[in-house]
Amino acid sequence: MKSAYLDNQATTPLLPEVLETMLPFFKESFGNAQSLHDWGDAPREALEDARAEVAKLIGGRPEEIIFTASGTEANNFALKGLAQAHQSKGKHVVISAIEHFSVLHSARTLEKWGFEVTLVPVDGYALVDPKDVASAMRKETILVSVMHANGEVGTIQPVAEIAKIVTAAGALFHTDAVATAGTIPIDVAELGVDALSMAANQFYGPKGAGALWLRKGTRIIPLLDGGVQEGGRRAGTENLPAIVGMGKAAEIAKRDIQSRMAKLVGLRDMLLHRLPAAIDHVLVTGHPTQRLPGHASFCIEFIEGESMLMLLSSKGIAASSGSTCTSRALKASHVLTAMGLPAEIVQGSLLFTFGQQITEGDVGYLVEVLPPIVDRLRQMSPLYADFLKGRR
Amino acid sequence: MKSAYLDNQATTPLLPEVLETMLPFFKESFGNAQSLHDWGDAPREALEDARAEVAKLIGGRPEEIIFTASGTEANNFALKGLAQAHQSKGKHVVISAIEHFSVLHSARTLEKWGFEVTLVPVDGYALVDPKDVASAMRKETILVSVMHANGEVGTIQPVAEIAKIVTAAGALFHTDAVATAGTIPIDVAELGVDALSMAANQFYGPKGAGALWLRKGTRIIPLLDGGVQEGGRRAGTENLPAIVGMGKAAEIAKRDIQSRMAKLVGLRDMLLHRLPAAIDHVLVTGHPTQRLPGHASFCIEFIEGESMLMLLSSKGIAASSGSTCTSRALKASHVLTAMGLPAEIVQGSLLFTFGQQITEGDVGYLVEVLPPIVDRLRQMSPLYADFLKGRR
Repeated sequence: MKSAYLDNQATTPLLPEVLETMLPFFKESFGNAQSLHDWGDAPREALEDARAEVAKLIGGRPEEIIFTASGTEANNFALKGLAQAHQSKGKHVVISAIEHFSVLHSARTLEKWGFEVTLVPVDGYALVDPKDVASAMRKETILVSVMHANGEVGTIQPVAEIAKIVTAAGALFHTDAVATAGTIPIDVAELGVDALSMAANQFYGPKGAGALWLRKGTRIIPLLDGGVQEGGRRAGTENLPAIVGMGKAAEIAKRDIQSRMAKLVGLRDMLLHRLPAAIDHVLVTGHPTQRLPGHASFCIEFIEGESMLMLLSSKGIAASSGSTCTSRALKASHVLTAMGLPAEIVQGSLLFTFGQQITEGDVGYLVEVLPPIVDRLRQMSPLYADFLKGRR
Repeated sequence: MKSAYLDNQATTPLLPEVLETMLPFFKESFGNAQSLHDWGDAPREALEDARAEVAKLIGGRPEEIIFTASGTEANNFALKGLAQAHQSKGKHVVISAIEHFSVLHSARTLEKWGFEVTLVPVDGYALVDPKDVASAMRKETILVSVMHANGEVGTIQPVAEIAKIVTAAGALFHTDAVATAGTIPIDVAELGVDALSMAANQFYGPKGAGALWLRKGTRIIPLLDGGVQEGGRRAGTENLPAIVGMGKAAEIAKRDIQSRMAKLVGLRDMLLHRLPAAIDHVLVTGHPTQRLPGHASFCIEFIEGESMLMLLSSKGIAASSGSTCTSRALKASHVLTAMGLPAEIVQGSLLFTFGQQITEGDVGYLVEVLPPIVDRLRQMSPLYADFLKGRR
């Protein structure tokens, strides 16, 4: 059977050359990077090399990189750590309504800790209007977090514009770049942010490695207390194999980012055009052009996304519905809801995220396989029956 | 040159068969365990298999295991998560004075959050007296944390006795079992604890995997907010390769624990007897018998531990001074200080932690190599000169 992995947003596969770089740190170089003897030397050097590569990927300095175990941890760290460190200046935080749950739920925790949180709305393309951020700001606003791109609908936010407003108002600006770091070019100086989250398994690196880039001199309270690792800002024995893998994946991403994007954008646009032509009542979600290179998302009316995922999987195709972490949660997507889409459309959310392994044939196969699946499911859909009745 | 890795407390090497088990999850089974398509199936099953193995290692149930990225994270999670979840009943927490920094500094954070923390002292063997825990308890005590064994001096605490007192008083009891899980037999029912932390890289598993065992029905506030992973108690894409490795390492540890202990105890006792016989003014630290199987710790008077580490390393021997995470912190060990040892003795802390790769020859080599190193360093030591002068 043909198969196509079109769910790179859930996780990318690991590049074989990245795994090769990791293997010595499972074997002869297994030591603890904090050890004062020879067994600590290779891990320590590799840790700092990886830090330099990750910094280079986003135009930061090595000492501004704090390794974490995931993008989720980086987001929790940024929200909770920055809010706690700067609460003497005020207890108001602003985030967008379509943040990943690791930001959204961290903000909910901040509310329990006595902070006030304002959610900035988005438009029908999932775009944040910088003016809305400006009007959400108060004298006591200490932190704003708006994601670089949304993993569910692919929309890339005008982060640099928002950062200008936030910085001028004297607050800190964090962006969740988990969906963009290693995927599109990033320069933290150009973006003008103070903190930026990333995750290695979004750019062909391993699971278990993420990072928070934090502008030099910015105070933060650790999420993980303990030893002196990461300059005392993130305790715990360093996961060297994963960190080394993140460094290698960052190096390759930096080198190949333009050619990778070129490949994905073409196939993405092919799918964005061909799927609505092949199936009735299909809505493209997210921005038509200002979106992630390999990201094509839709709502298929009158059907539940999950049943499509099952049938696609039976045809060898991996796709996703809603955001990664909610795929088992069976709730209406907060992102699509914030975009103003009605509940009956939101349930038909379907997203395809391409990786470098994709071919034009995969897109063709998907466009061939999906329409009969949709037909079959619609025949069982009471919503569709009502719709047909109404039209008759 | 001969070489001997005697620093297994910093991290154990990874077993080759554990790495073999991990490799498919870097390759064909790279999917996200939360994915609803076929690529999620193998990771999801492996995740639950690993959970079952880790539970079996300590006599718990699979659903009581929450995977984390490290022992440090498990300790932070236990302290902060349990204290926050139960603060309506009281805001007093009790820990021992010799806890790992991930417990000690988490307790300091709790103080910043408005909790009161009482430190229970230890005796000259680093033993906590259960009576001291009893007298530290108050009506508003909600949580007690006493480590199972101390990584720096090897002393194993009377955890079951302490747990009885804590439970009778209606508080929760957490134990940091990072130094013991996979090393000595553990049964959470026999210990009578409510929560227990562990780390895979302490029993020949990978870095990047830890776990908190939490008694069924015990409420906890997540440290990492976000997706629905780990039953909503620990968000972030599961680090499948590391988790699978932890599961395999747990399975092997469960099977081999008695033979492993038998090997280590003999060599440990050999070193505990031979080193003080070969060098003057050497103090064995920690309990003479109630200690970790492969753990031999000393204070060598009139010398700084770090200079011994360097010279031992030049002879191919990996050892440690103080606790792992403080080895670069150049501070007097809080453990040795709590045991009542004076500062000039504490500075000469030296510990050797054996793994399964050790031979009797390694112990012999160490006992041959260390005395001349000590002589050489003492000749440069002003403290030793003063001592000799005083004796003349």
